Amino acid sequence: MSTQPSRALDSFENPNPERDYEIRFECPEFTCLCPKTGQPDFATIHIDYVPDLKCVELKSLKLYLWSYRDEGAFHEAVTNQILSDLVETTQPRRMTVIGEFMVRGGITTTIEASYP
Amino acid sequence: MSTQPSRALDSFENPNPERDYEIRFECPEFTCLCPKTGQPDFATIHIDYVPDLKCVELKSLKLYLWSYRDEGAFHEAVTNQILSDLVETTQPRRMTVIGEFMVRGGITTTIEASYP
Amino acid sequence: MSTQPSRALDSFENPNPERDYEIRFECPEFTCLCPKTGQPDFATIHIDYVPDLKCVELKSLKLYLWSYRDEGAFHEAVTNQILSDLVETTQPRRMTVIGEFMVRGGITTTIEASYP
Amino acid sequence: MSTQPSRALDSFENPNPERDYEIRFECPEFTCLCPKTGQPDFATIHIDYVPDLKCVELKSLKLYLWSYRDEGAFHEAVTNQILSDLVETTQPRRMTVIGEFMVRGGITTTIEASYP
Amino acid sequence: MSTQPSRALDSFENPNPERDYEIRFECPEFTCLCPKTGQPDFATIHIDYVPDLKCVELKSLKLYLWSYRDEGAFHEAVTNQILSDLVETTQPRRMTVIGEFMVRGGITTTIEASYP
Amino acid sequence: MSTQPSRALDSFENPNPERDYEIRFECPEFTCLCPKTGQPDFATIHIDYVPDLKCVELKSLKLYLWSYRDEGAFHEAVTNQILSDLVETTQPRRMTVIGEFMVRGGITTTIEASYP
Amino acid sequence: MSTQPSRALDSFENPNPERDYEIRFECPEFTCLCPKTGQPDFATIHIDYVPDLKCVELKSLKLYLWSYRDEGAFHEAVTNQILSDLVETTQPRRMTVIGEFMVRGGITTTIEASYP
Amino acid sequence: MSTQPSRALDSFENPNPERDYEIRFECPEFTCLCPKTGQPDFATIHIDYVPDLKCVELKSLKLYLWSYRDEGAFHEAVTNQILSDLVETTQPRRMTVIGEFMVRGGITTTIEASYP
Amino acid sequence: MSTQPSRALDSFENPNPERDYEIRFECPEFTCLCPKTGQPDFATIHIDYVPDLKCVELKSLKLYLWSYRDEGAFHEAVTNQILSDLVETTQPRRMTVIGEFMVRGGITTTIEASYP
Amino acid sequence: MSTQPSRALDSFENPNPERDYEIRFECPEFTCLCPKTGQPDFATIHIDYVPDLKCVELKSLKLYLWSYRDEGAFHEAVTNQILSDLVETTQPRRMTVIGEFMVRGGITTTIEASYP
Repeated sequence: MSTQPSRALDSFENPNPERDYEIRFECPEFTCLCPKTGQPDFATIHIDYVPDLKCVELKSLKLYLWSYRDEGAFHEAVTNQILSDLVETTQPRRMTVIGEFMVRGGITTTIEASYP
Repeated sequence: MSTQPSRALDSFENPNPERDYEIRFECPEFTCLCPKTGQPDFATIHIDYVPDLKCVELKSLKLYLWSYRDEGAFHEAVTNQILSDLVETTQPRRMTVIGEFMVRGGITTTIEASYP
Repeated sequence: MSTQPSRALDSFENPNPERDYEIRFECPEFTCLCPKTGQPDFATIHIDYVPDLKCVELKSLKLYLWSYRDEGAFHEAVTNQILSDLVETTQPRRMTVIGEFMVRGGITTTIEASYP
Repeated sequence: MSTQPSRALDSFENPNPERDYEIRFECPEFTCLCPKTGQPDFATIHIDYVPDLKCVELKSLKLYLWSYRDEGAFHEAVTNQILSDLVETTQPRRMTVIGEFMVRGGITTTIEASYP
Repeated sequence: MSTQPSRALDSFENPNPERDYEIRFECPEFTCLCPKTGQPDFATIHIDYVPDLKCVELKSLKLYLWSYRDEGAFHEAVTNQILSDLVETTQPRRMTVIGEFMVRGGITTTIEASYP
Repeated sequence: MSTQPSRALDSFENPNPERDYEIRFECPEFTCLCPKTGQPDFATIHIDYVPDLKCVELKSLKLYLWSYRDEGAFHEAVTNQILSDLVETTQPRRMTVIGEFMVRGGITTTIEASYP
Repeated sequence: MSTQPSRALDSFENPNPERDYEIRFECPEFTCLCPKTGQPDFATIHIDYVPDLKCVELKSLKLYLWSYRDEGAFHEAVTNQILSDLVETTQPRRMTVIGEFMVRGGITTTIEASYP
Repeated sequence: MSTQPSRALDSFENPNPERDYEIRFECPEFTCLCPKTGQPDFATIHIDYVPDLKCVELKSLKLYLWSYRDEGAFHEAVTNQILSDLVETTQPRRMTVIGEFMVRGGITTTIEASYP
Repeated sequence: MSTQPSRALDSFENPNPERDYEIRFECPEFTCLCPKTGQPDFATIHIDYVPDLKCVELKSLKLYLWSYRDEGAFHEAVTNQILSDLVETTQPRRMTVIGEFMVRGGITTTIEASYP
Repeated sequence: MSTQPSRALDSFENPNPERDYEIRFECPEFTCLCPKTGQPDFATIHIDYVPDLKCVELKSLKLYLWSYRDEGAFHEAVTNQILSDLVETTQPRRMTVIGEFMVRGGITTTIEASYP
């Protein structure tokens, strides 16, 4: 299995598709770059979903989040992008992604996007 | 871009208008003046909204909140004013503004106003 | 304006009657007397309301709460009394009063009353 | 008034029966005996109710809870018993009793029962 | 009664089947093995249920959770397995099992499954 | 024993005078009046001492603190006064009194005085 | 081994007497009776010691603390008594016992005694 | 007494000069301007001192801190300035001033200066 | 590098031996067996040391702590054993090991041992 | 002034060199790469120093910490390196640097180094 940053998300077969159940990830180690200034931004990403046929593979999620490290990304866009990518890969029954970004200009910003 | 206090709020185009998602700001650095005594008041302002076509630009929000520094403003009126200004500028699908003011006379006051 | 304890609550005109919004007060400095033993009781009083035409004036609220300092008052009755007085004075759209009383006999008592 | 442990719960007339309001007690000083081993158990008891015509008298509640000190009582049964006794005595509009028992065998047990 | 790890869950007769009430267990001492690497995983297991005719016996629950100590178990599968076993044994009116697993690869995973 | 506010502090014989040991009281229910404005002040009083021949009697301490309820008392003076009265009555080996007063004018004041 | 309350404290041989090291116990399940009123008191007992040749056996400590359940005991005296009994049984290099008693008359009392 | 911002600190006579005791102020409502950018800075100021002949008057302290509202002031310089001004006015036996400034550029700065 | 539990601790050369500096590890995933009952015990292990020529290698520390998973170990002995093994392997300038074990019989036990 | 990551630390003249006072920075936005695996590490860096003639300039500190973003750095070495660089640039009277790194392999590592 790769140990390089990658947008390719892996999944595995949901072991209990007969039941709606929730999977929650808390990822406090997210960083990207501010598209305006090029300076680093930091966030905690929360992912909460009900799998259908596929579950998000944990290690590939780590590599996926790592892939933003050298990319310029606005708070609003990057949170929606993570949601869209995870939805596309795993087709969950429902999913919410929350990005809690660290304070800039004395203001803390949090973005919360849900599917469907 | 200006670095002076200003009532002119900037916005940018919502990158994901096809989806209802929430943006939350926490602004602990708000101060205005008491209209009765002229003495400083301090508050934390929370803003929580679902954008439609436009998003609030973060730096102009900072300058907007700064613009109250030398103005007399009652707790109830200033919280409603912030809501009205932000609604007018960005026409969000929904928005809530909360002002948590520091203790006066042994009493802590919080104002919460929502649109629509 | 008076600086004496007083049951006379003042109000001022709601600056935004066109909108339902919430005003919350937290008053940790409430004390009255136990009607059975005459000994002091202490409580934090929370008030949460949606104003109609009138808002509770903060300083008169302080003097109003002070007016219980030398009065015997059961937990249940005093919390309901505060609610009734505030409702009568300001005719809010809705209001909740919570009294959190300090531990007596190893038991903490909280009373929560709402209008309507 | 008695100062001995007693199952006889006292009540007093609800001063505000015209209104639904909530009374909450937190009682961290509850102890009984394990019916299997005879060893002491400890719990915090929470009581939350809307009175009808009668309110639970605080001192008799203390003596009532004390009356379990030398009794064998399973977690599930004792929490339901407290609810049943309080309902029988005061005929509340609704009531919830929660028993938070301290850790046994590495596991913390909480029981929550409601009327009606 | 056994003091060995065992999948055989014991139950006892619900003392109050006439009433819907909740029983909650918090079990911070759960460990199993990662099926991929064979390395230990640790979790806190929360169980919350409304009993029908039978209640989960606390000591057998401890032995049941202990039985995973030397087993390979994916986060998603083990949480669903605990739910299925407890449902089969006690036929509750409803039940939720939550597994809060400790951080791996900088990410904390929580699984929440419910019956029915 | 009296149940009225009183400056007369009672003591009892130290059961273990052969040993230096500490007794700590936390009293969150202290109130007096501001000598300038006549308005109520509230504080938590902490007392920490090593008894010599006499210990402070708990109920008389409660009545003693109650005795300030209708007295004008500056923060600095009242904390020192409590220390002096307790030292005079019980002649401890050492004692510290801390008064944590609630916020006035946006500023929280704490006074800490020690003997010897 | 007994499962009855008992003042007989057991000890076992210190496995590392060549080294000064600390053993700390936190016991939140202590209850005794007030010698004046006969009513229950509750406390958390902290024990912190450096063993010499003998260590306190954990189960006998539990039974020892249980033995106070039906005894009248003043806060100051019982904390010192626990220290004296533990010192006599195990002859530690040094030991501290702290009793944190729950609030009575609005005042929380803590006793801390040390040997030597 | 003035209600305008002022560098003129008032003092009053220490009521207990015969004893070393500590006075602590916590002032969370401090704001000044950044000398480089002109933008507002916010801080909590802690003052801790042992008075000699004079004590700091609380209301004049509030007006003194207010006087920085429209002044450019570096974190290091303003904290030392507050210490120097308070020392000059009240000649305390010892004093510490701590300025906890809110996050700028992802970094939180705290300055602590003491006399003598 | 091995991925099996192992008592063989690895070390690496201290990059800054010219300076005394502290390294702290917090390991919340420790489990062993009770030598009396064979049942699992759980603890958080804290290690705090000043390296001399060698530093503890993190992965081998994980495997070392894992090696206790199937061993019977008294709280006092295992904490001292971890200290002795780490001291022998890395010859630090000083080291402290703390074992915080989860509650047994209503009592929480913590062991703290230091070298030299 | 540069807005690029840079090892060149700027300083400014200490405004109060006549007095020993402390400056503390908390920097929760530090990331570097693991030299073994190339994967990102995250830490909070605390810096605490007494300046002599020069103070650390805040913006250049941000750029300095940013300069580690693409560098491989062991926990022990990078914390000592930050200390050495800051000491060389500003020649403080004393300085402490603490690096709190996020959990790896179930273990949290903290490094604390001081000068002199």
